[in-house]
Amino acid sequence: MTPERKKRLTDVLNCRQHDLTVVLENVFDPHNISAVMRTCDAIGIQDIFVLNTIIPRHKKWGTRSSSSAYKWLTVHQFEDTKACFIELRRRYEKIYTTHLASDAIGLFEMNLTRSTALVFGNEHSGVTEECRTLADGNFLIPQVGIIQSLNISVACAVTLYEAFRQKTIAGHYSSPHLPADYLRSLMDNWEMKDGLD
Amino acid sequence: MTPERKKRLTDVLNCRQHDLTVVLENVFDPHNISAVMRTCDAIGIQDIFVLNTIIPRHKKWGTRSSSSAYKWLTVHQFEDTKACFIELRRRYEKIYTTHLASDAIGLFEMNLTRSTALVFGNEHSGVTEECRTLADGNFLIPQVGIIQSLNISVACAVTLYEAFRQKTIAGHYSSPHLPADYLRSLMDNWEMKDGLD
Repeated sequence: MTPERKKRLTDVLNCRQHDLTVVLENVFDPHNISAVMRTCDAIGIQDIFVLNTIIPRHKKWGTRSSSSAYKWLTVHQFEDTKACFIELRRRYEKIYTTHLASDAIGLFEMNLTRSTALVFGNEHSGVTEECRTLADGNFLIPQVGIIQSLNISVACAVTLYEAFRQKTIAGHYSSPHLPADYLRSLMDNWEMKDGLD
Repeated sequence: MTPERKKRLTDVLNCRQHDLTVVLENVFDPHNISAVMRTCDAIGIQDIFVLNTIIPRHKKWGTRSSSSAYKWLTVHQFEDTKACFIELRRRYEKIYTTHLASDAIGLFEMNLTRSTALVFGNEHSGVTEECRTLADGNFLIPQVGIIQSLNISVACAVTLYEAFRQKTIAGHYSSPHLPADYLRSLMDNWEMKDGLD
Protein backbone atom coordinates (compact mmCIF):
# COMPACT_ATOMS: atom_id res chain seq x y z
CA MET A 1 0.00 0.00 0.00
CA THR A 2 1.36 3.41 -0.99
CA PRO A 3 1.65 6.12 1.68
CA GLU A 4 -0.96 8.16 -0.30
CA ARG A 5 -3.44 5.29 -0.20
CA LYS A 6 -2.82 4.73 3.49
CA LYS A 7 -3.40 8.43 4.18
CA ARG A 8 -6.60 8.32 2.13
CA LEU A 9 -7.96 5.36 4.14
CA THR A 10 -6.91 7.03 7.40
CA ASP A 11 -8.67 10.27 6.43
CA VAL A 12 -11.85 8.33 5.69
CA LEU A 13 -11.64 6.40 8.96
CA ASN A 14 -11.11 9.59 10.93
CA CYS A 15 -14.46 10.85 9.59
CA ARG A 16 -16.39 7.67 10.48
CA GLN A 17 -19.11 8.38 13.09
CA HIS A 18 -19.88 6.15 16.05
CA ASP A 19 -23.24 7.74 16.89
CA LEU A 20 -25.30 7.39 13.73
CA THR A 21 -26.65 4.33 11.98
CA VAL A 22 -29.24 3.15 9.50
CA VAL A 23 -31.49 0.12 9.97
CA LEU A 24 -32.97 -1.39 6.81
CA GLU A 25 -36.02 -3.41 7.82
CA ASN A 26 -37.13 -5.83 5.10
CA VAL A 27 -35.81 -3.60 2.31
CA PHE A 28 -35.65 -6.07 -0.57
CA ASP A 29 -34.38 -4.25 -3.66
CA PRO A 30 -30.60 -4.78 -3.90
CA HIS A 31 -30.27 -1.50 -5.83
CA ASN A 32 -31.85 0.35 -2.94
CA ILE A 33 -29.61 -1.38 -0.44
CA SER A 34 -26.45 -0.66 -2.39
CA ALA A 35 -27.47 2.99 -2.94
CA VAL A 36 -28.10 3.36 0.81
CA MET A 37 -24.69 1.84 1.56
CA ARG A 38 -23.05 4.27 -0.83
CA THR A 39 -24.66 7.20 0.96
CA CYS A 40 -23.64 5.77 4.36
CA ASP A 41 -20.04 5.59 3.16
CA ALA A 42 -20.29 9.11 1.75
CA ILE A 43 -21.32 10.71 5.06
CA GLY A 44 -19.15 8.55 7.31
CA ILE A 45 -21.48 5.89 8.69
CA GLN A 46 -19.48 2.72 9.42
CA ASP A 47 -22.02 0.36 11.01
CA ILE A 48 -25.37 -0.41 9.46
CA PHE A 49 -28.11 -2.86 10.41
CA VAL A 50 -30.04 -5.12 8.07
CA LEU A 51 -33.14 -6.63 9.69
CA ASN A 52 -35.03 -9.18 7.63
CA THR A 53 -38.06 -10.65 9.37
CA ILE A 54 -40.42 -11.15 6.43
CA ILE A 55 -38.02 -11.54 3.54
CA PRO A 56 -35.21 -14.08 3.22
CA ARG A 57 -31.74 -13.16 4.41
CA HIS A 58 -29.87 -11.34 1.64
CA LYS A 59 -27.35 -13.55 -0.08
CA LYS A 60 -25.70 -10.74 -1.95
CA TRP A 61 -26.22 -7.00 -2.25
CA GLY A 62 -23.29 -5.97 -4.25
CA THR A 63 -19.86 -7.24 -4.92
CA ARG A 64 -16.89 -6.86 -2.64
CA SER A 65 -15.14 -4.81 -5.30
CA SER A 66 -13.63 -1.48 -4.28
CA SER A 67 -16.41 0.39 -6.02
CA SER A 68 -18.96 -1.27 -3.73
CA ALA A 69 -19.62 0.52 -0.46
CA TYR A 70 -20.39 -2.86 1.14
CA LYS A 71 -16.69 -3.63 1.18
CA TRP A 72 -16.04 -0.70 3.53
CA LEU A 73 -18.98 -0.97 5.91
CA THR A 74 -19.67 -3.10 8.96
CA VAL A 75 -23.02 -4.76 8.30
CA HIS A 76 -24.96 -6.28 11.21
CA GLN A 77 -27.61 -8.75 10.07
CA PHE A 78 -30.61 -9.72 12.19
CA GLU A 79 -33.70 -11.85 11.66
CA ASP A 80 -35.27 -11.06 15.01
CA THR A 81 -36.56 -7.59 15.75
CA LYS A 82 -36.14 -7.78 19.53
CA ALA A 83 -32.55 -8.97 19.27
CA CYS A 84 -31.82 -6.20 16.80
CA PHE A 85 -33.31 -3.56 19.10
CA ILE A 86 -31.32 -4.85 22.09
CA GLU A 87 -28.15 -4.24 20.08
CA LEU A 88 -29.40 -0.86 18.85
CA ARG A 89 -30.25 0.22 22.42
CA ARG A 90 -26.78 -0.81 23.55
CA ARG A 91 -25.17 1.43 20.95
CA TYR A 92 -27.54 4.35 20.26
CA GLU A 93 -29.57 6.70 22.46
CA LYS A 94 -32.55 7.25 20.17
CA ILE A 95 -34.28 5.08 17.57
CA TYR A 96 -36.55 6.70 14.99
CA THR A 97 -38.65 5.06 12.30
CA THR A 98 -39.94 6.82 9.23
CA HIS A 99 -43.49 6.19 8.06
CA LEU A 100 -46.61 8.21 7.23
CA ALA A 101 -48.35 8.95 10.51
CA SER A 102 -49.87 11.95 12.17
CA ASP A 103 -47.45 11.80 15.10
CA ALA A 104 -44.41 12.19 12.86
CA ILE A 105 -41.93 15.01 13.39
CA GLY A 106 -40.37 16.74 10.40
CA LEU A 107 -36.83 15.79 9.38
CA PHE A 108 -35.58 19.36 9.71
CA GLU A 109 -36.88 19.59 13.29
CA MET A 110 -34.80 16.60 14.37
CA ASN A 111 -31.61 16.88 16.35
CA LEU A 112 -29.38 14.50 14.44
CA THR A 113 -26.25 15.38 16.40
CA ARG A 114 -27.48 13.04 19.14
CA SER A 115 -26.70 9.33 19.06
CA THR A 116 -29.39 8.05 16.69
CA ALA A 117 -30.52 4.97 14.76
CA LEU A 118 -32.81 5.61 11.77
CA VAL A 119 -35.11 2.78 10.65
CA PHE A 120 -36.29 2.58 7.04
CA GLY A 121 -38.89 -0.03 6.11
CA ASN A 122 -39.99 -2.25 3.26
CA GLU A 123 -40.56 -0.58 -0.14
CA HIS A 124 -44.28 -1.40 -0.15
CA SER A 125 -45.48 -1.90 3.40
CA GLY A 126 -43.09 0.44 5.23
CA VAL A 127 -41.82 -0.08 8.78
CA THR A 128 -43.54 -2.90 10.70
CA GLU A 129 -45.84 -2.28 13.66
CA GLU A 130 -43.35 -4.12 15.87
CA CYS A 131 -40.53 -1.71 15.00
CA ARG A 132 -42.77 1.30 15.43
CA THR A 133 -43.77 0.15 18.90
CA LEU A 134 -40.17 -0.41 19.96
CA ALA A 135 -38.87 2.89 18.57
CA ASP A 136 -38.73 6.26 20.37
CA GLY A 137 -40.42 8.21 17.64
CA ASN A 138 -41.24 8.64 14.03
CA PHE A 139 -40.12 11.23 11.48
CA LEU A 140 -41.05 12.27 7.97
CA ILE A 141 -39.37 14.10 5.14
CA PRO A 142 -41.62 17.08 4.40
CA GLN A 143 -43.20 17.09 0.94
CA VAL A 144 -45.32 19.68 -0.83
CA GLY A 145 -46.03 17.81 -4.08
CA ILE A 146 -48.72 15.62 -5.57
CA ILE A 147 -47.03 12.26 -5.47
CA GLN A 148 -46.17 11.99 -1.75
CA SER A 149 -43.71 9.18 -2.04
CA LEU A 150 -39.96 9.16 -2.32
CA ASN A 151 -37.80 6.21 -3.27
CA ILE A 152 -36.14 4.70 -0.18
CA SER A 153 -32.61 5.43 -1.39
CA VAL A 154 -33.62 9.04 -1.99
CA ALA A 155 -35.36 9.34 1.40
CA CYS A 156 -32.36 7.84 3.15
CA ALA A 157 -29.91 10.16 1.35
CA VAL A 158 -31.91 13.28 2.19
CA THR A 159 -32.06 12.19 5.84
CA LEU A 160 -28.38 11.28 6.10
CA TYR A 161 -27.21 14.48 4.46
CA GLU A 162 -29.28 16.51 6.92
CA ALA A 163 -27.47 14.56 9.66
CA PHE A 164 -24.16 15.28 7.91
CA ARG A 165 -24.99 19.01 7.74
CA GLN A 166 -25.90 19.17 11.44
CA LYS A 167 -22.96 17.04 12.52
CA THR A 168 -20.51 19.10 10.46
CA ILE A 169 -21.68 22.29 12.19
CA ALA A 170 -21.38 20.49 15.54
CA GLY A 171 -17.76 19.58 14.75
CA HIS A 172 -18.25 15.81 14.54
CA TYR A 173 -15.94 15.52 11.55
CA SER A 174 -13.09 17.59 12.92
CA SER A 175 -11.47 14.82 14.96
CA PRO A 176 -11.67 11.01 15.02
CA HIS A 177 -15.03 9.83 16.28
CA LEU A 178 -14.77 6.04 16.49
CA PRO A 179 -13.21 4.39 19.57
CA ALA A 180 -9.44 3.98 19.08
CA ASP A 181 -9.46 0.18 19.19
CA TYR A 182 -12.27 -0.05 16.62
CA LEU A 183 -10.39 2.39 14.38
CA ARG A 184 -7.26 0.25 14.58
CA SER A 185 -9.09 -2.97 13.79
CA LEU A 186 -10.87 -1.34 10.85
CA MET A 187 -7.57 -0.04 9.51
CA ASP A 188 -6.05 -3.54 9.71
CA ASN A 189 -9.09 -4.95 7.98
CA TRP A 190 -9.12 -2.28 5.26
CA GLU A 191 -5.39 -2.63 4.58
CA MET A 192 -5.88 -6.36 4.16
CA LYS A 193 -8.77 -6.16 1.73
CA ASP A 194 -7.78 -2.98 -0.10
CA GLY A 195 -5.96 -4.89 -2.79
CA LEU A 196 -8.63 -7.56 -3.20
CA ASP A 197 -11.15 -6.67 -5.90
CA MET B 1 -63.57 17.02 -9.22
CA THR B 2 -64.42 16.94 -5.52
CA PRO B 3 -63.81 20.08 -3.43
CA GLU B 4 -61.21 18.10 -1.43
CA ARG B 5 -59.29 17.20 -4.58
CA LYS B 6 -59.47 20.75 -5.85
CA LYS B 7 -58.14 22.02 -2.51
CA ARG B 8 -55.35 19.47 -2.64
CA LEU B 9 -54.24 20.57 -6.12
CA THR B 10 -54.49 24.23 -5.09
CA ASP B 11 -52.35 23.61 -2.00
CA VAL B 12 -49.70 21.95 -4.17
CA LEU B 13 -49.78 24.76 -6.74
CA ASN B 14 -49.43 27.38 -4.01
CA CYS B 15 -46.15 25.73 -3.00
CA ARG B 16 -44.71 25.62 -6.53
CA GLN B 17 -41.56 27.78 -6.81
CA HIS B 18 -40.79 30.06 -9.75
CA ASP B 19 -37.12 30.58 -8.89
CA LEU B 20 -35.62 27.09 -8.81
CA THR B 21 -35.12 24.55 -11.56
CA VAL B 22 -33.17 21.47 -12.52
CA VAL B 23 -31.45 20.93 -15.86
CA LEU B 24 -30.74 17.31 -16.83
CA GLU B 25 -27.99 17.36 -19.45
CA ASN B 26 -27.75 14.06 -21.32
CA VAL B 27 -29.03 12.04 -18.36
CA PHE B 28 -30.03 8.82 -20.07
CA ASP B 29 -31.42 6.42 -17.45
CA PRO B 30 -35.22 6.76 -17.36
CA HIS B 31 -35.24 5.60 -13.72
CA ASN B 32 -32.94 8.47 -12.80
CA ILE B 33 -35.08 10.94 -14.72
CA SER B 34 -38.29 9.76 -13.14
CA ALA B 35 -36.73 9.79 -9.64
CA VAL B 36 -35.49 13.36 -10.21
CA MET B 37 -38.97 14.39 -11.36
CA ARG B 38 -40.48 12.85 -8.24
CA THR B 39 -38.12 14.87 -6.04
CA CYS B 40 -38.88 18.04 -8.03
CA ASP B 41 -42.59 17.49 -7.43
CA ALA B 42 -41.93 16.79 -3.74
CA ILE B 43 -40.16 20.10 -3.09
CA GLY B 44 -42.33 22.23 -5.37
CA ILE B 45 -40.33 22.62 -8.58
CA GLN B 46 -42.76 23.05 -11.50
CA ASP B 47 -40.48 23.69 -14.51
CA ILE B 48 -37.58 21.43 -15.39
CA PHE B 49 -35.20 21.38 -18.36
CA VAL B 50 -34.08 18.33 -20.29
CA LEU B 51 -31.11 19.05 -22.55
CA ASN B 52 -30.04 16.22 -24.84
CA THR B 53 -27.11 17.06 -27.06
CA ILE B 54 -25.31 13.72 -27.24
CA ILE B 55 -28.13 11.27 -26.61
CA PRO B 56 -31.38 10.96 -28.58
CA ARG B 57 -34.42 12.93 -27.47
CA HIS B 58 -36.30 10.96 -24.82
CA LYS B 59 -39.40 9.30 -26.20
CA LYS B 60 -40.77 8.35 -22.83
CA TRP B 61 -39.65 8.72 -19.22
CA GLY B 62 -42.61 7.49 -17.37
CA THR B 63 -46.29 7.24 -17.95
CA ARG B 64 -48.76 10.06 -17.69
CA SER B 65 -50.47 8.21 -14.84
CA SER B 66 -51.20 10.11 -11.64
CA SER B 67 -48.42 8.30 -9.86
CA SER B 68 -45.90 9.70 -12.34
CA ALA B 69 -44.46 13.09 -11.45
CA TYR B 70 -44.07 13.82 -15.17
CA LYS B 71 -47.81 14.40 -15.40
CA TRP B 72 -47.56 17.33 -12.98
CA LEU B 73 -44.40 19.04 -14.21
CA THR B 74 -43.69 21.44 -17.07
CA VAL B 75 -40.81 19.88 -18.98
CA HIS B 76 -38.78 22.03 -21.37
CA GLN B 77 -36.80 19.97 -23.87
CA PHE B 78 -33.76 21.29 -25.72
CA GLU B 79 -31.23 19.82 -28.12
CA ASP B 80 -29.07 22.92 -28.34
CA THR B 81 -27.09 24.09 -25.33
CA LYS B 82 -26.98 27.78 -26.29
CA ALA B 83 -30.74 27.92 -26.87
CA CYS B 84 -31.29 26.21 -23.52
CA PHE B 85 -29.03 28.68 -21.71
CA ILE B 86 -30.77 31.67 -23.34
CA GLU B 87 -34.03 30.41 -21.87
CA LEU B 88 -32.38 29.67 -18.49
CA ARG B 89 -30.84 33.18 -18.37
CA ARG B 90 -34.24 34.68 -19.12
CA ARG B 91 -35.76 32.89 -16.14
CA TYR B 92 -33.04 32.38 -13.51
CA GLU B 93 -30.33 34.59 -12.05
CA LYS B 94 -27.66 31.96 -11.44
CA ILE B 95 -26.75 28.73 -13.19
CA TYR B 96 -24.63 26.14 -11.38
CA THR B 97 -23.26 22.86 -12.66
CA THR B 98 -22.14 20.01 -10.46
CA HIS B 99 -18.98 18.13 -11.34
CA LEU B 100 -15.72 17.14 -9.66
CA ALA B 101 -13.38 20.14 -9.93
CA SER B 102 -11.13 22.06 -7.62
CA ASP B 103 -13.09 25.30 -8.08
CA ALA B 104 -16.31 23.75 -6.74
CA ILE B 105 -18.11 25.26 -3.79
CA GLY B 106 -19.76 23.01 -1.21
CA LEU B 107 -23.52 22.48 -1.40
CA PHE B 108 -24.04 23.72 2.14
CA GLU B 109 -22.21 26.96 1.39
CA MET B 110 -24.62 27.81 -1.44
CA ASN B 111 -27.39 30.35 -1.15
CA LEU B 112 -30.27 28.44 -2.71
CA THR B 113 -32.87 31.05 -1.84
CA ARG B 114 -31.72 33.02 -4.89
CA SER B 115 -33.15 32.35 -8.32
CA THR B 116 -31.11 29.34 -9.43
CA ALA B 117 -30.84 26.66 -12.13
CA LEU B 118 -28.92 23.51 -11.17
CA VAL B 119 -27.35 21.46 -13.97
CA PHE B 120 -26.77 17.71 -13.52
CA GLY B 121 -24.86 15.85 -16.22
CA ASN B 122 -24.59 12.47 -17.88
CA GLU B 123 -24.23 9.42 -15.59
CA HIS B 124 -20.77 8.57 -16.95
CA SER B 125 -19.17 11.69 -18.37
CA GLY B 126 -20.83 14.35 -16.19
CA VAL B 127 -21.62 17.89 -17.29
CA THR B 128 -20.17 18.88 -20.70
CA GLU B 129 -17.39 21.43 -21.08
CA GLU B 130 -19.83 23.66 -23.00
CA CYS B 131 -22.27 23.81 -20.08
CA ARG B 132 -19.47 24.39 -17.58
CA THR B 133 -18.20 27.34 -19.62
CA LEU B 134 -21.66 28.90 -19.88
CA ALA B 135 -22.53 28.44 -16.18
CA ASP B 136 -21.81 30.85 -13.32
CA GLY B 137 -20.20 28.30 -11.06
CA ASN B 138 -19.84 24.75 -9.97
CA PHE B 139 -20.84 23.01 -6.75
CA LEU B 140 -20.26 19.67 -5.09
CA ILE B 141 -21.97 17.60 -2.45
CA PRO B 142 -19.35 17.06 0.26
CA GLN B 143 -18.31 13.45 0.82
CA VAL B 144 -16.04 11.88 3.40
CA GLY B 145 -16.15 8.26 2.22
CA ILE B 146 -14.15 5.91 0.05
CA ILE B 147 -16.40 5.64 -2.97
CA GLN B 148 -16.73 9.33 -3.94
CA SER B 149 -19.68 8.93 -6.23
CA LEU B 150 -23.38 9.32 -5.64
CA ASN B 151 -26.14 8.23 -7.97
CA ILE B 152 -27.58 11.20 -9.86
CA SER B 153 -31.06 10.81 -8.38
CA VAL B 154 -29.51 10.76 -4.90
CA ALA B 155 -27.27 13.78 -5.64
CA CYS B 156 -30.21 15.71 -7.03
CA ALA B 157 -32.43 14.87 -4.05
CA VAL B 158 -29.79 15.93 -1.51
CA THR B 159 -29.32 19.21 -3.40
CA LEU B 160 -33.02 19.95 -3.81
CA TYR B 161 -33.82 19.20 -0.17
CA GLU B 162 -31.09 21.61 0.92
CA ALA B 163 -32.81 24.19 -1.30
CA PHE B 164 -36.15 23.23 0.27
CA ARG B 165 -34.71 23.67 3.76
CA GLN B 166 -33.25 27.09 2.97
CA LYS B 167 -36.35 28.27 1.11
CA THR B 168 -38.65 27.10 3.91
CA ILE B 169 -36.70 29.19 6.42
CA ALA B 170 -36.83 32.12 3.98
CA GLY B 171 -40.64 31.82 3.80
CA HIS B 172 -40.85 30.81 0.14
CA TYR B 173 -43.61 28.28 0.86
CA SER B 174 -45.80 30.51 2.98
CA SER B 175 -47.56 32.25 0.08
CA PRO B 176 -48.05 31.49 -3.65
CA HIS B 177 -44.82 31.89 -5.55
CA LEU B 178 -45.70 31.40 -9.22
CA PRO B 179 -47.08 34.32 -11.27
CA ALA B 180 -50.90 34.44 -11.01
CA ASP B 181 -51.56 33.79 -14.72
CA TYR B 182 -49.23 30.77 -14.76
CA LEU B 183 -50.93 29.42 -11.63
CA ARG B 184 -54.34 29.76 -13.28
CA SER B 185 -53.27 28.03 -16.49
CA LEU B 186 -51.66 25.19 -14.51
CA MET B 187 -54.84 24.76 -12.48
CA ASP B 188 -56.92 24.54 -15.67
CA ASN B 189 -54.45 22.04 -17.10
CA TRP B 190 -54.36 19.95 -13.90
CA GLU B 191 -58.13 19.91 -13.55
CA MET B 192 -58.40 18.67 -17.12
CA LYS B 193 -55.93 15.85 -16.79
CA ASP B 194 -56.56 14.89 -13.18
CA GLY B 195 -59.09 12.23 -14.17
CA LEU B 196 -57.00 10.85 -17.03
CA ASP B 197 -54.80 8.01 -15.95
